[in-house]
Amino acid sequence: MPRRLVTSNTDFSTAFDDLINCKSVNRYYINELVSRIIADVIDSGDLALLDYTRRFDFFDPIEIGLSIDNAEIKAAVARIDSDTRKSLELAVERIENFHRRQLPKDFEINEMLGVRVSMRWSAINSVGLYVPGGTAAYPSSVLMNSLPAKIAGVSRRVMMVPTPDGVVNDLVLAAAHIAGVNEIWRIGGAQAIAALAYGTQTITKVDKIVGPGNAYVTAAKQHVFGKVGIDNLAGPSEILVVADAQNNPHWIATDLLSQAEHDPLAQAILVTDDKAFANSVATAVEDHLVTLPRIEIAEKSWRVYGAIIVTQSMEEIPEIVNRIAPEHLELAIADPEAMALQIRHAGAIFLGRFTPVALGDYLAGPNHVLPTAGTARFSSALSVFDFMKYTTTVAADPKGLAYLGPAAIKLAEMEGLSAHARSVAIRIEQP
Amino acid sequence: MPRRLVTSNTDFSTAFDDLINCKSVNRYYINELVSRIIADVIDSGDLALLDYTRRFDFFDPIEIGLSIDNAEIKAAVARIDSDTRKSLELAVERIENFHRRQLPKDFEINEMLGVRVSMRWSAINSVGLYVPGGTAAYPSSVLMNSLPAKIAGVSRRVMMVPTPDGVVNDLVLAAAHIAGVNEIWRIGGAQAIAALAYGTQTITKVDKIVGPGNAYVTAAKQHVFGKVGIDNLAGPSEILVVADAQNNPHWIATDLLSQAEHDPLAQAILVTDDKAFANSVATAVEDHLVTLPRIEIAEKSWRVYGAIIVTQSMEEIPEIVNRIAPEHLELAIADPEAMALQIRHAGAIFLGRFTPVALGDYLAGPNHVLPTAGTARFSSALSVFDFMKYTTTVAADPKGLAYLGPAAIKLAEMEGLSAHARSVAIRIEQP
Repeated sequence: MPRRLVTSNTDFSTAFDDLINCKSVNRYYINELVSRIIADVIDSGDLALLDYTRRFDFFDPIEIGLSIDNAEIKAAVARIDSDTRKSLELAVERIENFHRRQLPKDFEINEMLGVRVSMRWSAINSVGLYVPGGTAAYPSSVLMNSLPAKIAGVSRRVMMVPTPDGVVNDLVLAAAHIAGVNEIWRIGGAQAIAALAYGTQTITKVDKIVGPGNAYVTAAKQHVFGKVGIDNLAGPSEILVVADAQNNPHWIATDLLSQAEHDPLAQAILVTDDKAFANSVATAVEDHLVTLPRIEIAEKSWRVYGAIIVTQSMEEIPEIVNRIAPEHLELAIADPEAMALQIRHAGAIFLGRFTPVALGDYLAGPNHVLPTAGTARFSSALSVFDFMKYTTTVAADPKGLAYLGPAAIKLAEMEGLSAHARSVAIRIEQP
Repeated sequence: MPRRLVTSNTDFSTAFDDLINCKSVNRYYINELVSRIIADVIDSGDLALLDYTRRFDFFDPIEIGLSIDNAEIKAAVARIDSDTRKSLELAVERIENFHRRQLPKDFEINEMLGVRVSMRWSAINSVGLYVPGGTAAYPSSVLMNSLPAKIAGVSRRVMMVPTPDGVVNDLVLAAAHIAGVNEIWRIGGAQAIAALAYGTQTITKVDKIVGPGNAYVTAAKQHVFGKVGIDNLAGPSEILVVADAQNNPHWIATDLLSQAEHDPLAQAILVTDDKAFANSVATAVEDHLVTLPRIEIAEKSWRVYGAIIVTQSMEEIPEIVNRIAPEHLELAIADPEAMALQIRHAGAIFLGRFTPVALGDYLAGPNHVLPTAGTARFSSALSVFDFMKYTTTVAADPKGLAYLGPAAIKLAEMEGLSAHARSVAIRIEQP
């Protein structure tokens, strides 16, 4: 059974803290292994990649090569049926449309006083896109990672995807093809991150690595951070559904299960102000669970991390949501926009009774790579910003220097930085 | 002597690689110590802070307290002379003006098809601002860290500043006061970062930590990353000056020294197409060095990390700059804008002969917290973006669901995620 919390109970505060903290993981063992893998890739390059791929993905890459070539990609694309292809293309169109709107604008402030300052955006040269394989391969993740990079203007987009037993998912390759990925390697785990960050004999290192992965991939990203850029550290998926009693409990149950089926560590939480409705949803979850192909995963997630929170009123709910800062927030209520205005921390919000999270997972337009484990307090979905950086400029003429110089000299002197002061003063004294 | 590189020499490529790699630091010892400090702060809270402050900052905080109170701040502000105060206020005005222009805009795409998607920016609730103390205390860093947070709308802005021997810099407190910092603690090093990330009995944890510090602070930030947000990992300062022979060598020499005087590990590089000019600058640097109060620091930096690169033409220079991706780039040439267009990677560019970096350090407007050690390849100056995050929203009505649903179901099925498919299908079947 998922845990039950009732806000009017005296133990609510303790139970709620337990809920928020239940997902902390001991990472010591992982960090040690990941450090070793990264060191091996730095030292032995391709040989280490071959070795770890044999050990973790159970196939011999010597026979088929670590790189996935154009012929293989074209063959995969050819095997995709036209319905699937059209669905992918609709997703591409909508994701591109949304992310294009994110493109930031340069600005310049040109003062009459002889000082011009500006902010100029540019794309990162090369990025690594990690795409999880294994228990499920996600073509949608390929689109969500690579399209923002393409729109940002990143010229080299390198995809890493593990292929357990050497089997590549046709749809993953088709998605990469449609999204314009430049290079694809059948490498996963910490070794893929190390190859992207440090390069090997055959793989040229990149400037930044993005994309969610398992705990090893995440630990490796944290390890190489600084050497290259990384996006957020991804944790298991989460959904928080706020639902009143006017919902069909089966609809809400399938929403909860749509996160639970991702990962035994995923977390699905229902928050409702109606106890009877909470019971109906719990029953509906059981009904749907038994008919799900991924019952084993979804059941573990629901039993261990699932939760139902019953409040006394709708007014209590925004604060609960803000404290959890969920990755996905569904507001299946009469006036979802009114509640959304009270939400300060959530990766993505799905408004109303007809907006299951799955729409956003695939093709609503916004990115599905979202901040997890409460990190929505300080971070956001993947976006074109993750693939860009900016340079600021300052240009002063003698008049501008005369205007700003004295204050700069004063402040430099107060900080005891006399060469700073001198670099300004010397230009004013003898212009 | 600083190293000399000549692009026409046969060993240039090797010498250039050495230059780029000369700043790698072995962080093993640091990481171990930093992990211990963080664990102590988690376990013992304030007691650990008191203990480490006694050991590293050589004063007993029991007597004066870890917090810097309003009376102390007001007294410091009162001691500032009016010229300094006016200089600070001019800096505040210009920094605010520049950063206000960065504020991002929300957008919504409202399709007639029954689907609305949006992107909505909001401020982070609370941030920690680390301000280095020690060998030099920098009020300018207080402004550069706290003003973007204020403009972004962060409500709780907590400053940590080490105060060796218990001595606080009046100007640092005055800057914090003018910039509207809410809380100030006289705590530095890894222990300050740990207190911000995990909280103690008296210090409430924050959501994100920004600001440059020494190697311990940087290692600690990397350590707590994920638990809280952080900005870039700061390294020692760098300047790269591109100068033709038309410059006054003394002007260029003071620019190089203005970075060298920051830190023995700072790096100042001159790139010029004129060998005779290179020699004049080298001589001028020696002239100025001997009269600098911070000669010891500047000399170490210039001798060990300084470099002069002589090219055969100006055309060779942009590629050299892009490979270094310097923190500060000064273009003291006839047409700096033309060369700036060819620069893909630099933290901040200072255009023309009358724009010493020191202007930007204090009050030109752009931020002086910049990406170091080549990280300008993938990251940018501190900005209001560092203090904001966004939430995306999706809202579909029955028509929108009918439009997007079939493709979402198809893609979910192809990924083997049947609860995803079901959460959409169940709403279409029985709307």
